[in-house]
Amino acid sequence: MTTKTKQGNKMKSAEKNDRFVWTRKHLLGLEDLSKQELVHILDTAEGFKDISERAIKKAPALRGKVVVNLFFEDSTRTRNSFRLAASRLSADVLEFTAKGSSVSKGETLRDTARNLEAMGIDIVVIRHSAGGAPYLLSQCVDCCVVNAGDGFHEHPTQGLLDIFTMREARGDLAGMKVAIVGDIAHSRVARSNIWGLHTLGAEVFLVGPPTLMPAGADQLPVTVCYDFDEIIGEMDALNMLRVQFERIGLPTFPSVREYSRLFALNSERMKRAKKDVLVMHPGPINRGLELESEIADGPNSTILRQVTNGLTIRMAVLFLVNQAAAEKRKPEA
Amino acid sequence: MTTKTKQGNKMKSAEKNDRFVWTRKHLLGLEDLSKQELVHILDTAEGFKDISERAIKKAPALRGKVVVNLFFEDSTRTRNSFRLAASRLSADVLEFTAKGSSVSKGETLRDTARNLEAMGIDIVVIRHSAGGAPYLLSQCVDCCVVNAGDGFHEHPTQGLLDIFTMREARGDLAGMKVAIVGDIAHSRVARSNIWGLHTLGAEVFLVGPPTLMPAGADQLPVTVCYDFDEIIGEMDALNMLRVQFERIGLPTFPSVREYSRLFALNSERMKRAKKDVLVMHPGPINRGLELESEIADGPNSTILRQVTNGLTIRMAVLFLVNQAAAEKRKPEA
Amino acid sequence: MTTKTKQGNKMKSAEKNDRFVWTRKHLLGLEDLSKQELVHILDTAEGFKDISERAIKKAPALRGKVVVNLFFEDSTRTRNSFRLAASRLSADVLEFTAKGSSVSKGETLRDTARNLEAMGIDIVVIRHSAGGAPYLLSQCVDCCVVNAGDGFHEHPTQGLLDIFTMREARGDLAGMKVAIVGDIAHSRVARSNIWGLHTLGAEVFLVGPPTLMPAGADQLPVTVCYDFDEIIGEMDALNMLRVQFERIGLPTFPSVREYSRLFALNSERMKRAKKDVLVMHPGPINRGLELESEIADGPNSTILRQVTNGLTIRMAVLFLVNQAAAEKRKPEA
Repeated sequence: MTTKTKQGNKMKSAEKNDRFVWTRKHLLGLEDLSKQELVHILDTAEGFKDISERAIKKAPALRGKVVVNLFFEDSTRTRNSFRLAASRLSADVLEFTAKGSSVSKGETLRDTARNLEAMGIDIVVIRHSAGGAPYLLSQCVDCCVVNAGDGFHEHPTQGLLDIFTMREARGDLAGMKVAIVGDIAHSRVARSNIWGLHTLGAEVFLVGPPTLMPAGADQLPVTVCYDFDEIIGEMDALNMLRVQFERIGLPTFPSVREYSRLFALNSERMKRAKKDVLVMHPGPINRGLELESEIADGPNSTILRQVTNGLTIRMAVLFLVNQAAAEKRKPEA
Repeated sequence: MTTKTKQGNKMKSAEKNDRFVWTRKHLLGLEDLSKQELVHILDTAEGFKDISERAIKKAPALRGKVVVNLFFEDSTRTRNSFRLAASRLSADVLEFTAKGSSVSKGETLRDTARNLEAMGIDIVVIRHSAGGAPYLLSQCVDCCVVNAGDGFHEHPTQGLLDIFTMREARGDLAGMKVAIVGDIAHSRVARSNIWGLHTLGAEVFLVGPPTLMPAGADQLPVTVCYDFDEIIGEMDALNMLRVQFERIGLPTFPSVREYSRLFALNSERMKRAKKDVLVMHPGPINRGLELESEIADGPNSTILRQVTNGLTIRMAVLFLVNQAAAEKRKPEA
Repeated sequence: MTTKTKQGNKMKSAEKNDRFVWTRKHLLGLEDLSKQELVHILDTAEGFKDISERAIKKAPALRGKVVVNLFFEDSTRTRNSFRLAASRLSADVLEFTAKGSSVSKGETLRDTARNLEAMGIDIVVIRHSAGGAPYLLSQCVDCCVVNAGDGFHEHPTQGLLDIFTMREARGDLAGMKVAIVGDIAHSRVARSNIWGLHTLGAEVFLVGPPTLMPAGADQLPVTVCYDFDEIIGEMDALNMLRVQFERIGLPTFPSVREYSRLFALNSERMKRAKKDVLVMHPGPINRGLELESEIADGPNSTILRQVTNGLTIRMAVLFLVNQAAAEKRKPEA
């Protein structure tokens, strides 16, 4: 009883504050979101934070709804995070992996999705190796689509949880200087961060070897920098991307030792950073490679906080897209 | 509150209508079911249809019950459909696959089942490559057994959902002409359809090359036909079976092109069919092989409707077998 | 309503009886548990027994809590048993297997656990091939840790369910003579049984070839015996361990036939046993190898009862560790 009332009040006050109505039933990326939309997601997540801290971590918002985790790429964290977020809102969750599924019998993405939809799925959370797959899906189904990572394109909930963590630590993103360090070219995490941070008024620096910069980086609202040491002192947050071993040995990525020397965050390099710099990482960490173990576990690290906030952000996203879908289903007055 | 009352009324009116009491705690196949039993399942499913259309897709009928999905063959659709049906009735669902289970340690089917039962399982949904495995199981456990496909024997819930879909479209099955087209010999879907349709008064035609007709087809209540074009014009429904690639190249199945020319449903052949013929497929479709893409997505197709009805049928089946088991547990008055 | 009251009464009477307060938020093994602690778990399980026998097998004790099954070794029974135990107490369960997880990307056990914890996990149930892994985990996380089998070390819930089954059959363990037969050296089940039985006053006999006795068996509170026939007549319970085929052919284990002749429980050998001897097995059985089929299914067998009790014991353990954690979180008065 108290739970409901508390939740109710929070929602009411959120509405009072911004009078903003969320209308997207899909979340495909952060590139297209307005400042108001981004702030609305962050504020909604703020309102969900306390559910995860209660003794009984449950809210009835999605009771009787079905969320499907449609993952065409391996993932544990993101999948579990979405799963828990959905359970916490009382939804039923269906796990669906490409392996051992009809997809291996040659069924197309579209057929798979339409079949799931025919079973009454409300929200599809999709991860796919092809950029644009979630968009494609959103064009051929009526249910909500949430992008959980598509190719090198976007990973919007990761971008949002990173941004939520920065806002939680600093209050406001406007004017913050954020470096994203590593293999930017192949990082959907970087891309979602760039769009979200830029829209919210932060200044984004991309740091890494030229071979790992995305083509067309000059079209992005960022400053590109090949020397980490040159800019580290000005930064408010360092988002250290994971080194992807499968790329080592390619011309783009000569050796791990060379990479570490230039772009790893170690105690030596950390001395040049601001005292209160935020050290971020999307996980899982290669300890001692892109990030020294002591720094990962040290006072500047927001890494576990990011994981916790991931759940909260995903609750907010599932809640909002479902709300928008319900709104669209209503008959016109 | 209203939910309960609505459901209560529906059940009451169903009882009033037929005064029939369902007594089977297993569903092993459609061959043994009486007309009254078949109609009772279809009517019960009809009563469950609206649950899947509510905002909150939940009914408490199986709360505190445990359903195990015991699948010895790969499956995504049927497994998920049973899983969702059970969840929708508030049951807990346990997934059990042969791979990575004790079965690979040499445990017998019987031991596996009795162990699951000792954990308090209420309903076992079993898929197995050996025809008769569900029957065997039902002989050595006390809990309910539902056949989700056994060898080339039966797939009763698929038969029921096909029949439910035809009844939904036409009102009555008596006198309907239904062609089942393709590899009948190896199709448990065909077999369940044959028995169910025959009992309900429909006329069944088996269409395919002689090599893919079942041995003893002359003992079945069907008309066998090797020329699709000869009979297509009279049919009210065409149930297009999936081509199973693993059989191509065998003497029974010379080439895909040859098969398609004679037995695929394409726009050319479709011209000879009745305007309102129902085009059915158990999925997943090989688009362009047994079924042309435009027809699969066209106005005559019931394919997605079949998926939706599958959930409803499975809810009804789980509900009924559990009810029968509860009845048997009651002490005699 | 009645459910709650019944449960409430049961709990109250349990408290009245022993005035004992459980304080461990981890269950890592039975070696360290006092007699009072062991009895308290058994009594708590006794109180949960009726939940599994109700029509609606649910209690709200862990509602809104998240239990993760963190299994680094294959398992079906133990995993499912924990899963059902958690569901029966209304917890949400997350399945986590090493395969296809971040662990294969080189994440350490500690990182995995801390990440799960950051997602708000309340209880980690861990199985690991390395003895001591659950202890290690309990040192670096705040949530509860339950050992579901670690290397050759312990499998405490299996020990407890064996002991619970003996107590259920005999009322008291003091003075009972229990033989554990087979590959003791590599059995965590044996080890947990030894500690628990000894603390509760039973006399433990280890039976098997010298090559399969643990190093340092003389330090354990047991009688070692190489001749099964010599002692079988005095025993009250025979716990027949599973033969692990992967060890056959090693110098320690010459041949299956030789093993069976000396240590299998068959009808011939059974004649020398007490009429009411309990025949136990942790499952899955190799029928005809360590245990003859008729005996496994005969009147002395407690094998399915052990499975049923496993669920009850695991409910009790999950309930108690969670209670201890809640107690520790309370601010000091």
